[in-house]
Amino acid sequence: MQTAIRQQIFENAKKWVYEAGERIRSHMKKQFQIDTKSNPNDLVTEVDKATEQFFVEKIKTTYPDHKLIGEEGYGDTVDKLDGTIWIIDPIDGTMNFVHQKRNFAISIGIYHEGVGEIGLIYNVMEDVLYTGLKGEGAFRNQVKLPMLREKIQIETSIIGMNSILACENRRINEKKIQQLIKDSRGTRSYGSAALEFAFVAEGVLDCYITMKLAPWDFAAGSILIEEVGGMTVQATGEPVNILTDNTIITCNKLIYKDLMTKYVELK
Amino acid sequence: MQTAIRQQIFENAKKWVYEAGERIRSHMKKQFQIDTKSNPNDLVTEVDKATEQFFVEKIKTTYPDHKLIGEEGYGDTVDKLDGTIWIIDPIDGTMNFVHQKRNFAISIGIYHEGVGEIGLIYNVMEDVLYTGLKGEGAFRNQVKLPMLREKIQIETSIIGMNSILACENRRINEKKIQQLIKDSRGTRSYGSAALEFAFVAEGVLDCYITMKLAPWDFAAGSILIEEVGGMTVQATGEPVNILTDNTIITCNKLIYKDLMTKYVELK
Repeated sequence: MQTAIRQQIFENAKKWVYEAGERIRSHMKKQFQIDTKSNPNDLVTEVDKATEQFFVEKIKTTYPDHKLIGEEGYGDTVDKLDGTIWIIDPIDGTMNFVHQKRNFAISIGIYHEGVGEIGLIYNVMEDVLYTGLKGEGAFRNQVKLPMLREKIQIETSIIGMNSILACENRRINEKKIQQLIKDSRGTRSYGSAALEFAFVAEGVLDCYITMKLAPWDFAAGSILIEEVGGMTVQATGEPVNILTDNTIITCNKLIYKDLMTKYVELK
Repeated sequence: MQTAIRQQIFENAKKWVYEAGERIRSHMKKQFQIDTKSNPNDLVTEVDKATEQFFVEKIKTTYPDHKLIGEEGYGDTVDKLDGTIWIIDPIDGTMNFVHQKRNFAISIGIYHEGVGEIGLIYNVMEDVLYTGLKGEGAFRNQVKLPMLREKIQIETSIIGMNSILACENRRINEKKIQQLIKDSRGTRSYGSAALEFAFVAEGVLDCYITMKLAPWDFAAGSILIEEVGGMTVQATGEPVNILTDNTIITCNKLIYKDLMTKYVELK
């Protein structure tokens, strides 16, 4: 993708993300004021759909030849990676939205001919925007993020994961995950995959492991991680496929080998 | 404790907490600027000690008859609950401080004749102060927090806990904790006990369970929880003892019975 074109797409994406975030904040405020008894599940569905439709309209008007994959299904049916594709999660961290009224994000990854070019993760209630541009770095509120730690091992790592991975399950050897919990500096769980990617990019976490993510959950995050020298793969070690669900490990490269040989064993 | 006296102590405590927070922020900024290779473990020890000493000096000068228990040991040896006692954690969430440079808190609980009168939990980097005053409510940046949810059960609860509780251990039946992880709406782990108490007070979490906390970890939090209609007990169901380490369950009262009968079984 040409730099000038990419820059213009990025500027538009950023503007729309801020606008969508403002709409979400005021919608939440209004709803919770009007009717504190309103069902939060209905509210999230409504906001999720309205936000995706907002992006569909903006993108289709401004870039009629771009395609769009969105969680809510207002986008296109996309089965190949030709051209420019926007991959959008209007609200990542739905449970946090419903229950906590914060700690959720808008996530947008923009791919061109299969290559991740632009990533945006917007922590809506904190008003913190993480961005990544291929080859230009990752940023937090426009401040460039440093490259990931140069000295790190499992024993000094903080791992992002849902505690469900430590429970008996059909997907991953929970005994080895329990060992990872014991051997690492600790685990954290924030309840939004997009934000957990952003935290890995910041070095707040050193790794995030999860057994099932849809493209809109990691499309933006994996671009940010790449820009700070980290890596994102399936839990098998294979490259991720941005058109399907994937198991995901995103981490500082220095701990990847130990993770894979000692702690991550799929069933 | 008389209301006027308490109000004056609260105003001082608040002023000192903000001042200590400002010192921590500028100290961190300076240190990280001067020497990015400096050992973060040394930094946290230094800041921890300096912050506790700051409080000791303020309190001993202004209230020479008050006692002080602090994590760093600059306070008094206190073995009974007579008089007024300040229980202070200068940095709660040490690992977050070191690794994340955020998500840590100053925690201060002020007790009079054994009764929790004033609680302050200050999220230093976010500049969010949670306070609680016995009988007057709990507040987030001076905005009164509502009482906890009136309709909640395990299935709709978000549980705060360290994933280590789901691993083989000597203290709690991990199988039952794994069942709690599966039955609840989800778990979160933030790495600061004081902040996790504040999040329960806000309803961001509905419960926080942990197997070992020192008095300075829960002295402030339990006061906030009381003010929003929640409860804090040992994992045995017994009242907490603010002079010793305790197992802790702090939660919305509506889920307490289910927690204790179905999910929490000490070994």
